[in-house]
Amino acid sequence: MTATDPDGLADRVQDGDLRIHELEDHADPDTAAEARRTLVERETDADLSTVGDYAFPAEQAESTIENMIGAAQIPMGVVGPVPVSGGAADGEHYLPMATTEGALLASVNRGLSVIRDADGADARVTKNGMTRAPVFRVDGVAEAAETVEWVDDNVDALREAAESTTSHGELLAVDTYVVGDSVYLRFAYDTKDAMGMNMVTIATREACELVEAETPASLVAVSGNLCSDKKPAAINAVEGRGRSVTADVVIPGELVEERLHTTAEAIAEANTRKNLTGSAKAGSLGFNAHAANVVAAAFLATGQDEAQVVEAANAITTMEAREATASPRSDERRSREREDGTTDLYAAVSLASLEVGTVGGGTKLPTQAEALDVLGLRGGGDPAGSNADALAEIIAVGALAGELSLLAALSSRHLASAHEDLGR
Amino acid sequence: MTATDPDGLADRVQDGDLRIHELEDHADPDTAAEARRTLVERETDADLSTVGDYAFPAEQAESTIENMIGAAQIPMGVVGPVPVSGGAADGEHYLPMATTEGALLASVNRGLSVIRDADGADARVTKNGMTRAPVFRVDGVAEAAETVEWVDDNVDALREAAESTTSHGELLAVDTYVVGDSVYLRFAYDTKDAMGMNMVTIATREACELVEAETPASLVAVSGNLCSDKKPAAINAVEGRGRSVTADVVIPGELVEERLHTTAEAIAEANTRKNLTGSAKAGSLGFNAHAANVVAAAFLATGQDEAQVVEAANAITTMEAREATASPRSDERRSREREDGTTDLYAAVSLASLEVGTVGGGTKLPTQAEALDVLGLRGGGDPAGSNADALAEIIAVGALAGELSLLAALSSRHLASAHEDLGR
Amino acid sequence: MTATDPDGLADRVQDGDLRIHELEDHADPDTAAEARRTLVERETDADLSTVGDYAFPAEQAESTIENMIGAAQIPMGVVGPVPVSGGAADGEHYLPMATTEGALLASVNRGLSVIRDADGADARVTKNGMTRAPVFRVDGVAEAAETVEWVDDNVDALREAAESTTSHGELLAVDTYVVGDSVYLRFAYDTKDAMGMNMVTIATREACELVEAETPASLVAVSGNLCSDKKPAAINAVEGRGRSVTADVVIPGELVEERLHTTAEAIAEANTRKNLTGSAKAGSLGFNAHAANVVAAAFLATGQDEAQVVEAANAITTMEAREATASPRSDERRSREREDGTTDLYAAVSLASLEVGTVGGGTKLPTQAEALDVLGLRGGGDPAGSNADALAEIIAVGALAGELSLLAALSSRHLASAHEDLGR
Amino acid sequence: MTATDPDGLADRVQDGDLRIHELEDHADPDTAAEARRTLVERETDADLSTVGDYAFPAEQAESTIENMIGAAQIPMGVVGPVPVSGGAADGEHYLPMATTEGALLASVNRGLSVIRDADGADARVTKNGMTRAPVFRVDGVAEAAETVEWVDDNVDALREAAESTTSHGELLAVDTYVVGDSVYLRFAYDTKDAMGMNMVTIATREACELVEAETPASLVAVSGNLCSDKKPAAINAVEGRGRSVTADVVIPGELVEERLHTTAEAIAEANTRKNLTGSAKAGSLGFNAHAANVVAAAFLATGQDEAQVVEAANAITTMEAREATASPRSDERRSREREDGTTDLYAAVSLASLEVGTVGGGTKLPTQAEALDVLGLRGGGDPAGSNADALAEIIAVGALAGELSLLAALSSRHLASAHEDLGR
Repeated sequence: MTATDPDGLADRVQDGDLRIHELEDHADPDTAAEARRTLVERETDADLSTVGDYAFPAEQAESTIENMIGAAQIPMGVVGPVPVSGGAADGEHYLPMATTEGALLASVNRGLSVIRDADGADARVTKNGMTRAPVFRVDGVAEAAETVEWVDDNVDALREAAESTTSHGELLAVDTYVVGDSVYLRFAYDTKDAMGMNMVTIATREACELVEAETPASLVAVSGNLCSDKKPAAINAVEGRGRSVTADVVIPGELVEERLHTTAEAIAEANTRKNLTGSAKAGSLGFNAHAANVVAAAFLATGQDEAQVVEAANAITTMEAREATASPRSDERRSREREDGTTDLYAAVSLASLEVGTVGGGTKLPTQAEALDVLGLRGGGDPAGSNADALAEIIAVGALAGELSLLAALSSRHLASAHEDLGR
Repeated sequence: MTATDPDGLADRVQDGDLRIHELEDHADPDTAAEARRTLVERETDADLSTVGDYAFPAEQAESTIENMIGAAQIPMGVVGPVPVSGGAADGEHYLPMATTEGALLASVNRGLSVIRDADGADARVTKNGMTRAPVFRVDGVAEAAETVEWVDDNVDALREAAESTTSHGELLAVDTYVVGDSVYLRFAYDTKDAMGMNMVTIATREACELVEAETPASLVAVSGNLCSDKKPAAINAVEGRGRSVTADVVIPGELVEERLHTTAEAIAEANTRKNLTGSAKAGSLGFNAHAANVVAAAFLATGQDEAQVVEAANAITTMEAREATASPRSDERRSREREDGTTDLYAAVSLASLEVGTVGGGTKLPTQAEALDVLGLRGGGDPAGSNADALAEIIAVGALAGELSLLAALSSRHLASAHEDLGR
Repeated sequence: MTATDPDGLADRVQDGDLRIHELEDHADPDTAAEARRTLVERETDADLSTVGDYAFPAEQAESTIENMIGAAQIPMGVVGPVPVSGGAADGEHYLPMATTEGALLASVNRGLSVIRDADGADARVTKNGMTRAPVFRVDGVAEAAETVEWVDDNVDALREAAESTTSHGELLAVDTYVVGDSVYLRFAYDTKDAMGMNMVTIATREACELVEAETPASLVAVSGNLCSDKKPAAINAVEGRGRSVTADVVIPGELVEERLHTTAEAIAEANTRKNLTGSAKAGSLGFNAHAANVVAAAFLATGQDEAQVVEAANAITTMEAREATASPRSDERRSREREDGTTDLYAAVSLASLEVGTVGGGTKLPTQAEALDVLGLRGGGDPAGSNADALAEIIAVGALAGELSLLAALSSRHLASAHEDLGR
Repeated sequence: MTATDPDGLADRVQDGDLRIHELEDHADPDTAAEARRTLVERETDADLSTVGDYAFPAEQAESTIENMIGAAQIPMGVVGPVPVSGGAADGEHYLPMATTEGALLASVNRGLSVIRDADGADARVTKNGMTRAPVFRVDGVAEAAETVEWVDDNVDALREAAESTTSHGELLAVDTYVVGDSVYLRFAYDTKDAMGMNMVTIATREACELVEAETPASLVAVSGNLCSDKKPAAINAVEGRGRSVTADVVIPGELVEERLHTTAEAIAEANTRKNLTGSAKAGSLGFNAHAANVVAAAFLATGQDEAQVVEAANAITTMEAREATASPRSDERRSREREDGTTDLYAAVSLASLEVGTVGGGTKLPTQAEALDVLGLRGGGDPAGSNADALAEIIAVGALAGELSLLAALSSRHLASAHEDLGR
């Protein structure tokens, strides 16, 4: 008789009878995970009891992991509530964040508190499109030009092919790029409430078959890195990927002084020297202080793809001292004071390529789904896409709060001491 | 009498008697978290029972989160074992990974399996230095030049100041950059087994006081973005941050064909068109396929800073077909076949700025500490720094496995179908 | 009586009676230039006799310079002839180049000679569009979204406004970008045989007035740097500016060995390590060896805008060893040898943003017009735009020749000695 | 008898008796150039009489061109004089510029005039080092680490080898970079008054031989693109190449209003939206308006390498409104008005990699040498390097003037109309 208990299964792997990734073929997922823990514990002397003390049936994680041994537990907190006036988001929201970065939630919460007292933030998704960019081999530039011309003339046929594979996705555009004997086609889709990488990969593969059938081009890879997924690429920073979203707020000068203990001018100066000029000198694609902290923590809490933090955190933070009553059309837009001697602060964070979804992937896991419930954004929105839009807008407001708080702290020289108090 | 039970505490917050971040002042951390869950559940109708079912005392998370409500649970698995011949790492290792990206561990495991059959990978940390770069204001370039000259002449004094704040950190260098009336000083430290951001922030703040005392420069922000933390910046890609680490392997042609179902030439071609030329055309700082997937999953499992995935995933993947017996000194280094008609594959991943630690921060959390035990790298190494070096080397080998597997899949046109089988 | 001879005019400037830029108001252009030389000679002890010995009436330079004192004389040579099979260019061409870089023309000529023996190069313009991107101020992202929506809905009206200012230019597209309270609109035009910067500036200014009239946006600057003119920007490298053009050639292995004294494999390896991997590590937007040398020298000779060399030289050079009879559709595209033991070399240069014209600007100056006559491309083409297309294609072939020659020299370790022989 | 007159020589080339680059072997340089013109005129119907009407003996151009046919004549003018208070430059200077960009000199001259009235500009060279970065092949990262360690331990031996080839150059540093099985060594030299590319190529080649002799590394190319020459690379923008130089000025508010017809706040806002935020969004390495115009024109006039404009024009322009009496140490650095209601403008241009020389290369040509005489900087300086330093500082002041003038024009909406008046 063949053992199917954790210890027996571990024996069988050690005996070479089974391979470590085949355990699920011989036991239910939880037992397989326990067997794998047992095996690893034997071979490494680690004690995996906390890793094994997870709070969901392993079966629910089957589509998100292989070789499961349990779960990593990342502390989760909430910040807010904050009023958001968005294109999709509306009203007051708590934002759940999971992180191991001490002082982060305190910092974001301080920023949100100031935003709340300034009557909330505006936010808008200004572009939307999940991309996949296959690379094709041709014989040379003559064939490349021929291929590009065919693609430009046959976007409708490509759309039909691509959309035949999906009930939700819509092909928005196909952009063409030629480098020597390589042709890159960047397909952009509206994937509604799904982050959509798998959807667009499958759809694009179908479209690629049409390209191969009708042109001299031969597919080399369904991703040719002009997508660009999980790499910090200017093409995303410029043209966007997923949602391009901006959040902004005008903070009355009085609040800047009383709550952030600085001035609009000082915070704007710090932003310019650090986030604009400093990042320029660093050859950076990121012109912000720590947008990644908020994006990563919100991604973890809500089941987004952690590796996409790389490009999702791409942000430009702008801050300016504003005359209280200035019209934007005024030619004389001086930075003048209010009657109380203060100047208002305009602050904005613009994220170029925030890839988020409220359906599929990690969003279905229990703790992540609960976090989406906190936001009221679990599952598909009505209209389709509105939940993901709203999630993007709220994360952007969170990032804005983080920027405000850190910039204020920096310009007040409090960063290191805050870490001393709250950090490790 | 004042309520200190979760429900009563939640009432008090709702009544405006307490603020949400003050709960820990009135109850133990677990009760405070429960009260906060209760409050959020009331206000949002979310059910946070799984978030609340965490497997560690909330007290242990106090230095890593504020406003705690529980934990995000991310499925964790293991890949390997794989033999690593590193500068610090040695022998066979399992690598724990936490992710919600279906098919990822299967892919990495396939790559590691091939590396194992090729007798393992080499790995080396080739640079090491955690950086912090304050920005100072001066009156103009005349004062900037004066400041830079003083810094260049007084590195020893700066070292003494900086190191007075830390028992472990060592100041390695101070690089100077001038832009108009801003002076940026990039301090680089050996932080041993700590990732070290807080350590270097505190040390640099101390050094900044000396700069302010001795030069006309005035500190604007302890981070001026030339560090560059949590932003994708060329300065990190070029000069490194944390560990610069490379892993590589030579895979016999026979293994490439039998196990990866492709050829060295085909995989090298795919790598060139996608990871080199494609990324070049995309204006990218990341010349790889999906190093971020492995870095993010290993970071989550082992308690690293998730937001640093932004720059930690910065990698260049190189692949080339190699004549089996080629001497690297040969001037005629043709890609010729072995007698069996196959050609070997050389594959490498070079990560420029992998910030890792085995002490402090999230590494102390229970599931994360257990994951470090799987690697045998929990806590400080002997010599100091060797555990963090080894962790960097093993993550690099994991990234290499991921690149091999995905490139092979792409060149075999299997990407989308793999996701169909294993994904969502 | 008021002096109008050079000496007298110089006196008057020195006496404060005239300002140095007002001399043309008091004398013909040549006399004014002489007076200015006289003045500068007096004040600096320089002898400007050669500068003053220019070969054209100063009047002809009036639209290209102010405060003229004469001319810089840059040695001009020719390379070629080379057969080009382009979308617009056809047949054999000499390429005039003006430079002070010793060994450059010899190098390019060697490359062209090999291309000629390989039956010439292919070339194609794969994109065309001169851009201007004004930046507008809005009150915040809510207004930004409103502005962007209006622009997207009113491209026809913008086209009408823009094209009302020009008899040749055609508006192709308007792309929108939002960063906080700034809105950038990138207008792209077909400017036919003109490089077109002034044309598109004037047309865009007209369109901006419509945007200001119909939206809350207020113009800050007619160029907001997303154009991007005379800066090395990824937006140009990715999306193109002016002409995106590729030239390529397949060189039989025998020629590679006999004429370039290397092998296809060796030159491809050098290209990968230097132009792809090296540039990747350098955080570069230029993945080539020295395309700028050819672009700059051809620009000088033919009257293009020298400052645009910055982005016009943006190029990716790709080189690969190719099996002589390989079909590009073959799944087994091994790098195999011909029967004579050699492997062919495929070489390509792809320039993303080559801004060229054959009418207007410096093309009207005498030596520059003569150089365009050498190419047979002076003035407007038939159809309109074909002369500028052909010029772009021929410059791309020149750049390809330069890359081939230098890569061959590098892989043969001849660079420094070539400079010793031919250089300074 | 063999013909040696131009017509006869042209016949011989057409008959296949001579090759076009061999003419100098059979006639003096001027006759050879005439023969070449004759040949090209016959084959293309171009009339090259103006190209042939150059003002110097062809012999003087022998080290700067091959296949000479004559000269391109580019209109040259002067701007200034302007007082410069530099590390090397001192006193009033005219700056010669050669360009075909109408309105450019008028614009720069306007800026210089304002700078002059503001008592001149400061300027400083803050870094200096000409670089060459060979790439070596090793077997893998184990050998790479070994090579890097050897280099770090043997900088003195490398210096001795490198400096054995040059009487002027001094090796400053060797930085090491590893990517897979490629090792890049970036050698930086003080080349004094020479731009120095050839000097450092020869010196580095010598050092490479030592590396090859003592380590397992094998040279692939003496330039591995981390130099980085004639490509827009972050490594230059961050670490510098040639001279890193900044020029700045404080312009009293009254002058800003009367002479530039704008305000400090308006020009600072335009600079931030365009040069900082706009360039950030464009994925640019150039954070300026048109520094390349000034750099290119000054390079042409003074015999610099035109292709190096690519990186030499890399600049960050910063502008800020400044309280007249503000101390830089003040924590309350508000942008307040003077008593006359105006605010001062601080403006700076920081060029990261300005490669210039006053000896060698094109500086020896007659018109270029005369232009250097206008600056008083022809030939070697005392101390060595001071002439090139001064040239860098003066060009930086010219670029600053160009930025001031264009930003003022943009913020006054005058760009397009200026071009209409002065342009084509």
